[in-house]
Amino acid sequence: MTASTPIVGIIMGSDSDLKIMQAAADMLTHFDIPFELTVVSAHRTPERMVTYAETARTRGLQVIIAGAGGAAHLPGMVAAITTLPVIGVPIKSSNSIDGWDSVLSILQMPNGVPVATVALNAAKNAGILAAQIIGSHHNKTAEKLAAYKKQMKDEVGEKIDGLKDTWPNQFD
Amino acid sequence: MTASTPIVGIIMGSDSDLKIMQAAADMLTHFDIPFELTVVSAHRTPERMVTYAETARTRGLQVIIAGAGGAAHLPGMVAAITTLPVIGVPIKSSNSIDGWDSVLSILQMPNGVPVATVALNAAKNAGILAAQIIGSHHNKTAEKLAAYKKQMKDEVGEKIDGLKDTWPNQFD
Amino acid sequence: MTASTPIVGIIMGSDSDLKIMQAAADMLTHFDIPFELTVVSAHRTPERMVTYAETARTRGLQVIIAGAGGAAHLPGMVAAITTLPVIGVPIKSSNSIDGWDSVLSILQMPNGVPVATVALNAAKNAGILAAQIIGSHHNKTAEKLAAYKKQMKDEVGEKIDGLKDTWPNQFD
Amino acid sequence: MTASTPIVGIIMGSDSDLKIMQAAADMLTHFDIPFELTVVSAHRTPERMVTYAETARTRGLQVIIAGAGGAAHLPGMVAAITTLPVIGVPIKSSNSIDGWDSVLSILQMPNGVPVATVALNAAKNAGILAAQIIGSHHNKTAEKLAAYKKQMKDEVGEKIDGLKDTWPNQFD
Amino acid sequence: MTASTPIVGIIMGSDSDLKIMQAAADMLTHFDIPFELTVVSAHRTPERMVTYAETARTRGLQVIIAGAGGAAHLPGMVAAITTLPVIGVPIKSSNSIDGWDSVLSILQMPNGVPVATVALNAAKNAGILAAQIIGSHHNKTAEKLAAYKKQMKDEVGEKIDGLKDTWPNQFD
Amino acid sequence: MTASTPIVGIIMGSDSDLKIMQAAADMLTHFDIPFELTVVSAHRTPERMVTYAETARTRGLQVIIAGAGGAAHLPGMVAAITTLPVIGVPIKSSNSIDGWDSVLSILQMPNGVPVATVALNAAKNAGILAAQIIGSHHNKTAEKLAAYKKQMKDEVGEKIDGLKDTWPNQFD
Amino acid sequence: MTASTPIVGIIMGSDSDLKIMQAAADMLTHFDIPFELTVVSAHRTPERMVTYAETARTRGLQVIIAGAGGAAHLPGMVAAITTLPVIGVPIKSSNSIDGWDSVLSILQMPNGVPVATVALNAAKNAGILAAQIIGSHHNKTAEKLAAYKKQMKDEVGEKIDGLKDTWPNQFD
Amino acid sequence: MTASTPIVGIIMGSDSDLKIMQAAADMLTHFDIPFELTVVSAHRTPERMVTYAETARTRGLQVIIAGAGGAAHLPGMVAAITTLPVIGVPIKSSNSIDGWDSVLSILQMPNGVPVATVALNAAKNAGILAAQIIGSHHNKTAEKLAAYKKQMKDEVGEKIDGLKDTWPNQFD
Repeated sequence: MTASTPIVGIIMGSDSDLKIMQAAADMLTHFDIPFELTVVSAHRTPERMVTYAETARTRGLQVIIAGAGGAAHLPGMVAAITTLPVIGVPIKSSNSIDGWDSVLSILQMPNGVPVATVALNAAKNAGILAAQIIGSHHNKTAEKLAAYKKQMKDEVGEKIDGLKDTWPNQFD
Repeated sequence: MTASTPIVGIIMGSDSDLKIMQAAADMLTHFDIPFELTVVSAHRTPERMVTYAETARTRGLQVIIAGAGGAAHLPGMVAAITTLPVIGVPIKSSNSIDGWDSVLSILQMPNGVPVATVALNAAKNAGILAAQIIGSHHNKTAEKLAAYKKQMKDEVGEKIDGLKDTWPNQFD
Repeated sequence: MTASTPIVGIIMGSDSDLKIMQAAADMLTHFDIPFELTVVSAHRTPERMVTYAETARTRGLQVIIAGAGGAAHLPGMVAAITTLPVIGVPIKSSNSIDGWDSVLSILQMPNGVPVATVALNAAKNAGILAAQIIGSHHNKTAEKLAAYKKQMKDEVGEKIDGLKDTWPNQFD
Repeated sequence: MTASTPIVGIIMGSDSDLKIMQAAADMLTHFDIPFELTVVSAHRTPERMVTYAETARTRGLQVIIAGAGGAAHLPGMVAAITTLPVIGVPIKSSNSIDGWDSVLSILQMPNGVPVATVALNAAKNAGILAAQIIGSHHNKTAEKLAAYKKQMKDEVGEKIDGLKDTWPNQFD
Repeated sequence: MTASTPIVGIIMGSDSDLKIMQAAADMLTHFDIPFELTVVSAHRTPERMVTYAETARTRGLQVIIAGAGGAAHLPGMVAAITTLPVIGVPIKSSNSIDGWDSVLSILQMPNGVPVATVALNAAKNAGILAAQIIGSHHNKTAEKLAAYKKQMKDEVGEKIDGLKDTWPNQFD
Repeated sequence: MTASTPIVGIIMGSDSDLKIMQAAADMLTHFDIPFELTVVSAHRTPERMVTYAETARTRGLQVIIAGAGGAAHLPGMVAAITTLPVIGVPIKSSNSIDGWDSVLSILQMPNGVPVATVALNAAKNAGILAAQIIGSHHNKTAEKLAAYKKQMKDEVGEKIDGLKDTWPNQFD
Repeated sequence: MTASTPIVGIIMGSDSDLKIMQAAADMLTHFDIPFELTVVSAHRTPERMVTYAETARTRGLQVIIAGAGGAAHLPGMVAAITTLPVIGVPIKSSNSIDGWDSVLSILQMPNGVPVATVALNAAKNAGILAAQIIGSHHNKTAEKLAAYKKQMKDEVGEKIDGLKDTWPNQFD
Repeated sequence: MTASTPIVGIIMGSDSDLKIMQAAADMLTHFDIPFELTVVSAHRTPERMVTYAETARTRGLQVIIAGAGGAAHLPGMVAAITTLPVIGVPIKSSNSIDGWDSVLSILQMPNGVPVATVALNAAKNAGILAAQIIGSHHNKTAEKLAAYKKQMKDEVGEKIDGLKDTWPNQFD
């Protein structure tokens, strides 16, 4: 795995989504997974979207993370064109109806064209899921994922200890 | 307006949507508006969708009616490519979450790319709306629309008369 | 098309809706489409609403854009009276139940009386949809719509370039 | 209170709503309140609706019960024109989005124009509420309402007794 | 109608609801309808609620307005006990699930026990509806309601005039 | 624990709820917990409800299970009067808005008056929860609960074995 | 009941939930019920969760209060392992879809494994419900619960008196 | 890839879910991906679930597909324990609140623990997504996925041809 060849592509409908989607990039950096990140709009640059999806596998990508809000068509349309796994991040945009629009536009794909949907605004989890997909066959990434799980557990352990000064606890 | 040149295109994601979408064709027939009808799937035939949308205006279409269910991307993606008005019909498919998925996937389009959305399963209204768009500049269609409104009113009138045998009514 | 004769009418239930609805006027100005804008309240000025709808076509209007919030009856009632296409803009008013009330009151019209509904608060898209309806038979407007699509695409292109300084991107 | 002069008007958007709305008529009959019943469609017969609402008080009506489904504008539009209390019955029509559309279109009226909304399909309760409005100043109706409450209680009493054969009950 | 004898009772579950419910009192004052206002909690003072409802008619009340939030049982429980018309005001309290809880707890009453429900937080409309109920048989109140409708219309008229300076309008 | 003295009271708004609520009785029978079962309607027999709740503890009850549908006030009102734990079973009645009304009317109780809410129609779980409450201080019931958990696990075990004939499984 | 042996365990998925969950501890303190409080994360410390649930009864706990947000699995998973009654507190976390996710993840448990769910963020009610469960067989706690009910009623009484200076009230 | 060593594990909460989940197995068979299938219940066999998840990677699994309904904890809990990618299938069980409960319980996972969620009841798509994950690094599977996409497109082509006998179509 050469650092310079991205194996995960992070795309989003608008650069205003970057404040949410950056968390996916952060996690991939954490797991030492080379990625690329750009804007691909289903509705404003449909040809670009088609080309991006058509060339994704041959350019070396193994996973695509696509974030979009409102009537969010980017993840599903990319999944319609590529055979790579596509992770969809529903983004709660302004004027969204509480996020339901992006969640349902991404999740409820028809038979034949799945999108691996994560929680509303959960770009961080999209990054981790991409790492899990890589890690399903790449041992080093799997080890880093195990370390990350351990780290999360240890952080909880510290919080548990912190609470003991203030609150009764006979369990620990 | 030659009968043989379609000016409205009716498309749908699957031929299983035909039982809903046929009502749009029926209304266009009623208003003597030539149309074409075919299956265009955003997720199974994305290139076909792109070509359909790109050529729609030059082939003579003035309005596109697109029906789809679930994560319904067809109307919005067609609207992303053509500058024609696109009418979206949310279809309540099996496994739909009560129709909310198709409604929100079609309605909540981002700024710049509107879809003229009608009610759930309301292909009949899509046909009438297409006629209204044609009729906004075509007098004969406008006259037929006025006649249709009158006919609806007259049908209510008959129902009113029918009820009088059974129910008291001092208004009429 | 004389500049002084409006062909699109923008109406709204209250002048407090103007901060949302102004975006429709801005788009029509962008596309050089003459419009008029006023307040017509279904619930406070029902006669005015009836007269507005009855005279709309004869006064030269080709499309009506109607915005309203809560139990939003203005778009549907105007559509009940005129045969012109009516574009409905659901507005998320204060005390709205998350916008669902205006969306459903405008979208879910019965058979025979369609309203071309756009997304919550999407007055901008209502303006573009009106232009698309005009442009379905008016070439100059169609050309402007094509230019607008190109402009949106170009703006995305600039954003893509802007991101390249900070983020890896082997696609472009 | 002469039997022949209706003091409650029951209206509905379509005769297909009669199977729901009949329960309102049944309750008014039960309480000996003269009523009239007819079809008034906001969207198919808007002039009729205006005239009905404008003449309601002078024709002797004291309460109007209006039932409608989907984007249900009849109750709210009638309330916009008359100063009589208007009771709205949301009807769950076919293609309704689970009844939410009719409930919200009737309930969420703007300031200044209330509709007294009852539960989904609850025409029976609309009839009782009309009787309560009459009974607020008419003693005989109030007495009948009290008797009805007693009757409901007695019916529960019978059910309680019926269950005792099968189930343990130390309360009664 | 002696000013000192209240004919409308305004009750609410908590004095924190007063900031919403005060609008009902303001409207009754506007229509010169004597009212009383107090706190009656279904869940904290159930006996008080029972007594309030049982004595309401004999104490001279003709209408009860009850506001409550969350699992809002006050309007329905009062309606279970009295035969007076009860107007329910769903209040969007903190920790409410977007107001749906109060709306549904008040609206969806079972057969036999209606509550005349108004929109979320719409205490103003509750006051007007109470006036409409009084006005259904009291001419002076009916006249004031007609004047109020005219005033609302006139206020819209002023807004229409105000917009003319800025916006084109060939309708008026 | 004498078999003849009920320690759990099962109440429901109508005998039509019995087909759902019977499952609670079945579970209590399974756990040898004496119970009583009757109809108590918040809206049709409010005095009965008050008396039931007021006397519940002194009559020996330790837990109350209350089932109701629509605007379901029975569990919350009983909880307002007694200090016993009250388990609420939301019932999806006809004309319910998909069960949301009963769920929210029971769950969203204000501060000070909890109802232990179980899933929609989950009377069986209400019976088990009542047993868990008894079993929190009664060892024999706790043992039966442990046996029930084991039985559930064993039933899954049988299903696992049953699937092995048809499906590959290297785990077991 | 020795003060030093906790009989209620309060657990939560993260220490960020403490600002909500503290209200449960406050109520238990009010009712003199010894409790312990710590962080147990279903998703970050699953083994800890299993051990906590497995040892809960033998460590002397009689009730467990578990708070969690989003896809909230802690209450249900603990209930899967222990036979103690488990009270679930749905917490409205950031990025929650309006709290629906936590409510439904906790409430809608399958047959056999109930969770006693309280309202969104209602940790205070969880504390009271735990006290009611203890009080179902412990007289002193029952007396304190009765006193608490009286105190709530008295506080309403003071509010009623406070309103009398400003508002007419002929009931009290 | 030996046919006898499963690399995908399909688990479900109950054998009643098999009628939905079988479609995942069918797709894996279609793509020649060895899998195993069994019942693992989060709530009835929690230890089994823990063991299954802990041993999944070492037993050779690369992806886990977990289906569950209602408060669906199985996919999220398995994802909490393993570092393999977990695909969650929300199942619309009886007594589900329209499927929202399973969708939100699976989708809305907290930071750190993603579940790749597919549409309601979409086990078929779960199978395809698992194949895409395998295919991200396994060329033969990728080729089969490309062939599957082509086959879907061809099936649409046949439907298009079938419609031509009945409906006008100038596009093809």
